Amino acid sequence: MQDTDITQRLATWATGLRGSDIPAEVRREGVRTFVNWLGCAVGGARHETVDRALEAVNLFTGPARAQVIGRTERLDELHAALINGISSHVLDYDDTHLKTIIHPAGPVASAILAVAETRAVSGEDFLTALILGVEVECRIGNCVYPEHYDRGWHITGTAGVFGAAAATGKLLGLDARQMTWAFGIAATQSSGFREMFGTMCKSFHPGRAAQNGAMAAFLAKSNFDSSLRAIEAPRGWANVLSTKQDYSQIVDGLGESWEAGLNTYKPFACGIVIHPAIDGCQQLKERLGAKVAKIVSVELRTHPLVLELTGKTTPQTGLEGKFSVFHAAATALLKGDGSPTAFTDEMVRDPAIIALRDKVKATTDGSVHEDAVHIAVTLDDGERIELHVPHALGSLERPLSDEAITDKFARQSAPVIGESATTDLIAKAWALASTADVATIAKASAGPA
Amino acid sequence: MQDTDITQRLATWATGLRGSDIPAEVRREGVRTFVNWLGCAVGGARHETVDRALEAVNLFTGPARAQVIGRTERLDELHAALINGISSHVLDYDDTHLKTIIHPAGPVASAILAVAETRAVSGEDFLTALILGVEVECRIGNCVYPEHYDRGWHITGTAGVFGAAAATGKLLGLDARQMTWAFGIAATQSSGFREMFGTMCKSFHPGRAAQNGAMAAFLAKSNFDSSLRAIEAPRGWANVLSTKQDYSQIVDGLGESWEAGLNTYKPFACGIVIHPAIDGCQQLKERLGAKVAKIVSVELRTHPLVLELTGKTTPQTGLEGKFSVFHAAATALLKGDGSPTAFTDEMVRDPAIIALRDKVKATTDGSVHEDAVHIAVTLDDGERIELHVPHALGSLERPLSDEAITDKFARQSAPVIGESATTDLIAKAWALASTADVATIAKASAGPA
Repeated sequence: MQDTDITQRLATWATGLRGSDIPAEVRREGVRTFVNWLGCAVGGARHETVDRALEAVNLFTGPARAQVIGRTERLDELHAALINGISSHVLDYDDTHLKTIIHPAGPVASAILAVAETRAVSGEDFLTALILGVEVECRIGNCVYPEHYDRGWHITGTAGVFGAAAATGKLLGLDARQMTWAFGIAATQSSGFREMFGTMCKSFHPGRAAQNGAMAAFLAKSNFDSSLRAIEAPRGWANVLSTKQDYSQIVDGLGESWEAGLNTYKPFACGIVIHPAIDGCQQLKERLGAKVAKIVSVELRTHPLVLELTGKTTPQTGLEGKFSVFHAAATALLKGDGSPTAFTDEMVRDPAIIALRDKVKATTDGSVHEDAVHIAVTLDDGERIELHVPHALGSLERPLSDEAITDKFARQSAPVIGESATTDLIAKAWALASTADVATIAKASAGPA
Repeated sequence: MQDTDITQRLATWATGLRGSDIPAEVRREGVRTFVNWLGCAVGGARHETVDRALEAVNLFTGPARAQVIGRTERLDELHAALINGISSHVLDYDDTHLKTIIHPAGPVASAILAVAETRAVSGEDFLTALILGVEVECRIGNCVYPEHYDRGWHITGTAGVFGAAAATGKLLGLDARQMTWAFGIAATQSSGFREMFGTMCKSFHPGRAAQNGAMAAFLAKSNFDSSLRAIEAPRGWANVLSTKQDYSQIVDGLGESWEAGLNTYKPFACGIVIHPAIDGCQQLKERLGAKVAKIVSVELRTHPLVLELTGKTTPQTGLEGKFSVFHAAATALLKGDGSPTAFTDEMVRDPAIIALRDKVKATTDGSVHEDAVHIAVTLDDGERIELHVPHALGSLERPLSDEAITDKFARQSAPVIGESATTDLIAKAWALASTADVATIAKASAGPA
């Protein structure tokens, strides 16, 4: 295959894609992606990360045309994209493309729901743009994963900006040349480090990817030009940001195989690699009952990435707790909790949690899959209980049902905008594909006036 | 030395720096940096790159509080920073820190002149912030150059974002912790590829660095947190974006040796590495007179970076012409021109220029310094004329005089805002250090009402 026109081939496919080209099951997954994203954005809307970003953004915002999800403020569409991208990711509770650990919806849905508020977009067209954006970012991620991620890039930001550009460009009706430029303008803004995990900058990444990708599309619409081979050039995105480049992952089977159909939704509000441990520890809590108080050691045998990503032994804040498999395991064993309430500052500082946390040990084993874990618990009388989780809840093998997604939405949203508004918003979200103007969904997320 | 607190040490120094700590000669260079930048920003203000960016930006801009340099529009300060960063760099005529090929003023001055319009900043305080920003970006550049640049990063964007954050943070009065966060928020937005050279995205890089660095400072002011060691962490900026990390370049001699005192100003409107060739060809034009018509070959022996960066043999646009040593040499020999008029679409397509361009050959020689060139011209009667330029005009050894900077400013500015407004603006710019409120300078750049 030719590696000299990857960006243009992807752009040409993107501009030509029609909603009717997308298989029904992929469109159905797109709706689930949207519902899950919206619930997370409402759930994160009152986080102090969002408050602080809004304080700064309010100094500069343009016309108040786009809703801040889960709040009453309205901003210009690019700033709304930024804030909604932050909200949807700040609880680490969103979605995951498991091949790349990209959280696909944040950069894409945050960009296009805000942009859609200025131009009467139907749910059908919105869904096509959303699926396109997810497809583009995940394919570009597949091209460079895992070497790109290993180098230290937060791939949700670095690949996500292409998804936001593609989806926004679709709404704006870019031609193939403009879409190629949009990818170039997106590429040359691509950034975000894993070093930021545990700080407010982690959720800033999908927010900025949404904002920058959307801006790339608007600039391209104004014929602001760029390289025509930003992804594959010798000093283009894939070569500069990665030591692996498999361009077949970007262009092979376009329109035939769909990464957007492989999205998964987090049952637990933390890094995806801890999910098997939480799942297993919740099962063990059920099995042990009162004997949880007798635990003297918890041994986890995990995929190596678990300790690399979530090896914080003494987290000090709720955000840091999301990157501590020790805290997560202890909280699941003691409280049965893996939801956002398991990762508050209070929970991280709870003496009982800390005492159990310090009994958790983890070893890595390259033969253990990323969505699996082996757990062994030893009690003070010497009893040893072992558990193997082959596939964590929320994985492709054990996907969240529509009902579970609705339940997750309701639990996050009700404390923020109230139960009545939540019920209404959930119904509107599931009805995306038949919505005449998706702005009505964005506006409904503000809750009662 | 300890490599674990580079970011915090730099931030602590930055927040403690007082104007009186800066040597007089460095402050003087800061004024020259400012005057040169302002002239370039006016000169580039009507470029179609700016027109197209403004068309997109106008959709989103917030309160019209900051001047678009050289035009009548006013935007919110972050969007003004973006546009002015583009204007100041679009002609490739700005300034150069020769150790790193960073163009220092674009990211920094563009950010803080816009921000200063909202808060009555004196020329003295502005100058301190400007010098601080330049110092920070150049030191960070020194830490990773040349490996970082060789990998494909456009260092004016990637390092410039730190300069904009430092300078804006200084104006906002950040404390050391907030400044550390600002550097972290800047780091995780750092981007921009050399692949974009010859497209509109090249000047987008300093613009976006100005905007993103300023935004980083505003976010930090609102206590939006980040990593405390974004530069030096194992997966921090220097390790992710470079294979070389020399942290002593960042923290050794802070306040004693000044990179900001080493800025240089371009006599020619193109990539700095072509400057020796233009300088030499202008000298040869003088020497040859009418015999220029008899040239049958031009041989250039140059530093290897010349062909790597500016090796386009058949440029099609003015922007591409800036990356063709062949076009630049031919235009200098035939027209004596190296100013912006040498790099228009018309000049690149001029048959006489093309004919001479095709007679220019270049070979690289690692022993030739970046600011030197050997030229040999052969005429149709066999006569051979040789010239050696040991240091190009505009280098540290042959710096532009204040008068030359004024002349460069006037030639760029007069066609844009008229001669009278230009004379007034030049006087205001040189008087920076005694200005009560630098907003008056920004406003004067709009020209007559």
